[in-house]
Amino acid sequence: MNTELFFQTHLSLKEIHQDHAPAQTLLIFDQKLKSSKVAKKLIDSYPYRYGVRAGEKLKDLDLFPGHVRKMMALVHKINQKELGVLALGGGSVGDFSGFFSSVLKRGTRLGNIPSTWLAAIDSAHGGKTALNVKGFKNQIGSFHSAQSIFLIKDLLENQPSILKEDASGEMLKIGLIDGTKLWKSLKKKELDLWALLPQAIQAKYKVVDEDPFERKGYRQILNLGHTLGHVIEAAMGISHGRAVGQGLVFSVLWSHHLGFLSDRHFEDLSRTPLFVKFQNEFEETLQELPLRKLDSYLNMDKKKQSSNSLTFIFIGRPGLCVRQPVKVPDVIKEILRQRSQLSPS
Amino acid sequence: MNTELFFQTHLSLKEIHQDHAPAQTLLIFDQKLKSSKVAKKLIDSYPYRYGVRAGEKLKDLDLFPGHVRKMMALVHKINQKELGVLALGGGSVGDFSGFFSSVLKRGTRLGNIPSTWLAAIDSAHGGKTALNVKGFKNQIGSFHSAQSIFLIKDLLENQPSILKEDASGEMLKIGLIDGTKLWKSLKKKELDLWALLPQAIQAKYKVVDEDPFERKGYRQILNLGHTLGHVIEAAMGISHGRAVGQGLVFSVLWSHHLGFLSDRHFEDLSRTPLFVKFQNEFEETLQELPLRKLDSYLNMDKKKQSSNSLTFIFIGRPGLCVRQPVKVPDVIKEILRQRSQLSPS
Repeated sequence: MNTELFFQTHLSLKEIHQDHAPAQTLLIFDQKLKSSKVAKKLIDSYPYRYGVRAGEKLKDLDLFPGHVRKMMALVHKINQKELGVLALGGGSVGDFSGFFSSVLKRGTRLGNIPSTWLAAIDSAHGGKTALNVKGFKNQIGSFHSAQSIFLIKDLLENQPSILKEDASGEMLKIGLIDGTKLWKSLKKKELDLWALLPQAIQAKYKVVDEDPFERKGYRQILNLGHTLGHVIEAAMGISHGRAVGQGLVFSVLWSHHLGFLSDRHFEDLSRTPLFVKFQNEFEETLQELPLRKLDSYLNMDKKKQSSNSLTFIFIGRPGLCVRQPVKVPDVIKEILRQRSQLSPS
Repeated sequence: MNTELFFQTHLSLKEIHQDHAPAQTLLIFDQKLKSSKVAKKLIDSYPYRYGVRAGEKLKDLDLFPGHVRKMMALVHKINQKELGVLALGGGSVGDFSGFFSSVLKRGTRLGNIPSTWLAAIDSAHGGKTALNVKGFKNQIGSFHSAQSIFLIKDLLENQPSILKEDASGEMLKIGLIDGTKLWKSLKKKELDLWALLPQAIQAKYKVVDEDPFERKGYRQILNLGHTLGHVIEAAMGISHGRAVGQGLVFSVLWSHHLGFLSDRHFEDLSRTPLFVKFQNEFEETLQELPLRKLDSYLNMDKKKQSSNSLTFIFIGRPGLCVRQPVKVPDVIKEILRQRSQLSPS
């Protein structure tokens, strides 16, 4: 992956324009960022721009042709020599823009400026782009890495703090996967996301570079916490990052129960403030999860292996993931077991 | 490009099933092939199949989400282990299926069984896939090479002979680009397309392998005859292959007029039956071409460089192409010049 990362404390338009010249770039941006001073300065500097409403609906394949038609009207006006797409927004904007960039004229240059911590830590990196087909997530997509990714502190800090909490789920995930210095930093009470960002990104690239096109299966470890995370997200309407945080707790408890994770490591985890926070949230979720619908939610999981099994990511210790095929009924059984362990409220 | 070619005089299902197992393959096929015995046998051997109506409308991006929805219903039933797509049809079916295969689950295995000579000679090879956006051809697409391409004589011979004539335009083009043994074979009165097929395909791969993702510009020489060919196709409703044949004549005459092509080579060409045939057809076209619309047709050309110029492929001799930017008004001037050279009818 030839992605170059640029960390900017304050916005430097010059650096961005150098890689993505306004005359040959279509900027796709999250409309609501117009209210942010930093983002507005960036948006105004690109004459060819397309504002979108962020969210899963943006990724709906049914709406894609309509977007393409409007974007093509802009693209036709652009100097074609080094035509490119620049995304400014969160995960859905990145997925949508990345997919469009990958299929526009059979592939154009892509840049990404994540505006949410979640995208800055996770989704902006690794080249995955995607659209949804009738509620099934990420069924259509491509691998298309951004040539440059700009991480701008002023822009990220501008976001509501609720989004910061959302990001801590993916931060905990990548810390657990990595297990080194990053994991140690995560044990502190207060997280400085900006300071942790370079390490978190580096940890993700370490996995991605081993298996850039997800052919070996190794990249699936990035799915840690996501199997139940997706169910919680869909069934309870909980945000992606928080749902993943709770899914991590589920995976940790199951890994401990099965003996993958030793008592010592489990106790260490149980003393980590971020883990405890998600554990408390997960206990509430466990009580409200619609048990009868679990089967259909789990069967929608995109990582489904065959008719009734899926690849689950267990954890052996921070820094060691275990990929294992499990049956959907076994996941449900484990949910019920963890539920039965709750102290009666 | 890791494409494997299989030449079959008679259909061998076994060979096809070996690379594209019916249990894990979605067959996308041209519906009208059901009336062909050979094709029907092939179609019936794939339980997961999707029949389409071939033609440009199949490539309409607006209709793509509807197709995807129907195809996903089949895909979800398929063993996901080595999920793949197999295309059976002409150029439009190949473009459509190839694009779907390239974006389904971020890329799946692709096989292609061209059913027309035009696809067998040209479009099935080289990995280009494409959809159209509101009449603008091939604006959305990808590079996604088939893993295996099956050339089946019985299937190709089953097509109406008009399609054979259509293919001779692309055959003349690739012969001119190649300039070696293939070009000499094309000077004969009767063309045996099946016998020429391996050489023609090889000649195309020679160009494609130099520039698989069309980044260096070299691959553009495959566009020989296409600048005016596309105009003739769009303005006169003439089939792609014949329009390209006529576009080749235009390019040869212009190359000769500008001195790129020597008198000796021009005379040699003028004695080639296939060239003479297209020259006669082009003379008729020249008289009927709607001159006032030329500008807008030429500006729609997808290879357009910037506001008013495009890359035109001239020919120096068989085996030597010359890429040169030209202005749209210069193309129109040359059309008028060639028109004025016609003997009054």
